[in-house]
Amino acid sequence: MTTQTDMTIVALGGHGGPEVLKPRRAPVPQPGAGEVLIAVRAAGVNRPDVLQRMGAYPPPPGAPDWPGLEVAGTVAAVGPGVSRWREGDRVMALLSGGGYAEFALADEGAVLPIPGGIGFVEAAAIPETFLTVWHNVFQRGALKAGETFLVHGGTSGIGTVAIQLAHAFGAHVATTVGSDDKAEAARRLGADRAVNYRQEDFATALKDWQDGRGIDLTLDMIGGDYLPRNIEVAAVDGRIVQIAHLNGRKGEVDLFAIMRKRLTLTGSTLRARDKAFKAALAAELEAKVWPLLSEGRVKPLVDTTYPLEKASEAHAHMDVDHIGKIVLVASPE
Amino acid sequence: MTTQTDMTIVALGGHGGPEVLKPRRAPVPQPGAGEVLIAVRAAGVNRPDVLQRMGAYPPPPGAPDWPGLEVAGTVAAVGPGVSRWREGDRVMALLSGGGYAEFALADEGAVLPIPGGIGFVEAAAIPETFLTVWHNVFQRGALKAGETFLVHGGTSGIGTVAIQLAHAFGAHVATTVGSDDKAEAARRLGADRAVNYRQEDFATALKDWQDGRGIDLTLDMIGGDYLPRNIEVAAVDGRIVQIAHLNGRKGEVDLFAIMRKRLTLTGSTLRARDKAFKAALAAELEAKVWPLLSEGRVKPLVDTTYPLEKASEAHAHMDVDHIGKIVLVASPE
Repeated sequence: MTTQTDMTIVALGGHGGPEVLKPRRAPVPQPGAGEVLIAVRAAGVNRPDVLQRMGAYPPPPGAPDWPGLEVAGTVAAVGPGVSRWREGDRVMALLSGGGYAEFALADEGAVLPIPGGIGFVEAAAIPETFLTVWHNVFQRGALKAGETFLVHGGTSGIGTVAIQLAHAFGAHVATTVGSDDKAEAARRLGADRAVNYRQEDFATALKDWQDGRGIDLTLDMIGGDYLPRNIEVAAVDGRIVQIAHLNGRKGEVDLFAIMRKRLTLTGSTLRARDKAFKAALAAELEAKVWPLLSEGRVKPLVDTTYPLEKASEAHAHMDVDHIGKIVLVASPE
Repeated sequence: MTTQTDMTIVALGGHGGPEVLKPRRAPVPQPGAGEVLIAVRAAGVNRPDVLQRMGAYPPPPGAPDWPGLEVAGTVAAVGPGVSRWREGDRVMALLSGGGYAEFALADEGAVLPIPGGIGFVEAAAIPETFLTVWHNVFQRGALKAGETFLVHGGTSGIGTVAIQLAHAFGAHVATTVGSDDKAEAARRLGADRAVNYRQEDFATALKDWQDGRGIDLTLDMIGGDYLPRNIEVAAVDGRIVQIAHLNGRKGEVDLFAIMRKRLTLTGSTLRARDKAFKAALAAELEAKVWPLLSEGRVKPLVDTTYPLEKASEAHAHMDVDHIGKIVLVASPE
């Protein structure tokens, strides 16, 4: 049990640019029933944190009002009823917020062990992207071995994980990237085809890929004018799963194409799901993917780390070219 | 076995208005392996027949080039390998085309017995709408008892069947109609709420229906500007199934709403499916719905009948107000 009573957090001093992120002191929270207090060693930075900073994505009711959706560290204390975890366990966790801090509370079911061979920094880059990819690609999107898979933004946090997992589970993987360097990085991760969208229209480029069978599953975080092209390249019985809409939330669909190819357009957000859902998802991810992480067949990609107190610099970096995730490093006593 | 060698069909003398439909003589076809020759007593008229007449919906390869997707009559002959059916059996069938004729060929698996108490005219109104509704509402749309269901065009052939089946299987049913008379007809069929779209915007009207839970499943054949409103009224985890697009094939979607409510937008066409799919669908429909037809709890609604030779008048009637289906009556020797 930690004896520390207050801690550093990085909170929002208003909504706006990276500069609104400011370190301040706050009390160390106490774990309630079913909760785990984690001494944070590293915290992942995610796109929803940026949206929250800009005022476009308020935290759900009950969540801390400072950002941070995932952390890695050691268990500092457990609340009543927690049986799996003990003080000192090396863990990572998905949070509903509050990860930019020296300590963070997580629901027992959203805590996962750190697989062998993975450090705290890499571990902090895992929960949000791996859980998001597992749900949207393998559960909601039902990707199967031998199918064709397209993920946009192949070198983003989500993209790098989606490429690796789809490849590891036997799909043919295509991706879109913004430079030849990124195309090369995507191919190293397991992409069979990497389209530089600055040079080619992806729908044209992928038209004849894999004998022109079309894309069985597209994971998209771009939206806007990508939507009609996602529909255009979809295979019969294809699925398109939307997890963000960086280019705009409105898009046009061709209903005749949806009927003729029997397409499914769906999407989800992870943060809004209830504890039971997240716990079941985490359990499935641990069963299916932890062996691959332990064997090194799949790994989280970390682009850069920043000290927790410099979260504003980390956010500024989010708008600049990077491959994989940006992670904050905390140093609790 | 019939001794008739030629028959009346109603074929397309070009593409255009109802007047292009013209009776002519053609040879009576012979059933191949797995096929059933039906002496047609009645043939249903469907929207795809109208599209085919206008040149917008060519028949699939191998299908006769005259229209007609469903018939009822008696078995005139069976091809090699057909075991379930014998000459004289009262049957209805889903066809890939060619129903506007005195005789029609059907695949064995797409032939269904006529339930007790149902005449040929009513039976001819069953296959296309009941199979379409069963697949899109109960299989693809996964409607469950206690859920909210919205079908547009409540007094169309599809609408009248969708209302009855959804009601019979325990859903709360809403529909849109174009007049107060049609609203009354929809309520008699089992609709809990019928919105006259000429008087009210359906999205506004249904906002607070069923304590504002939203629509779990929408079956839509309108498309165009109905799509954003279908998304607006959808419940969390809601599904929207598109089976036609009378108001336009392009529509706008709000991807954020799809993600936030975890919606599924999908659709299908029945005609393009293979024999095995249609046979499995027909078998499930017979098992689940034939008892309801025999008990009179669900019934096909026939608006008007026309003699086969007057198919052009029947098509002209498709553009005029009607409730339920329009059926052609043939009189084979």
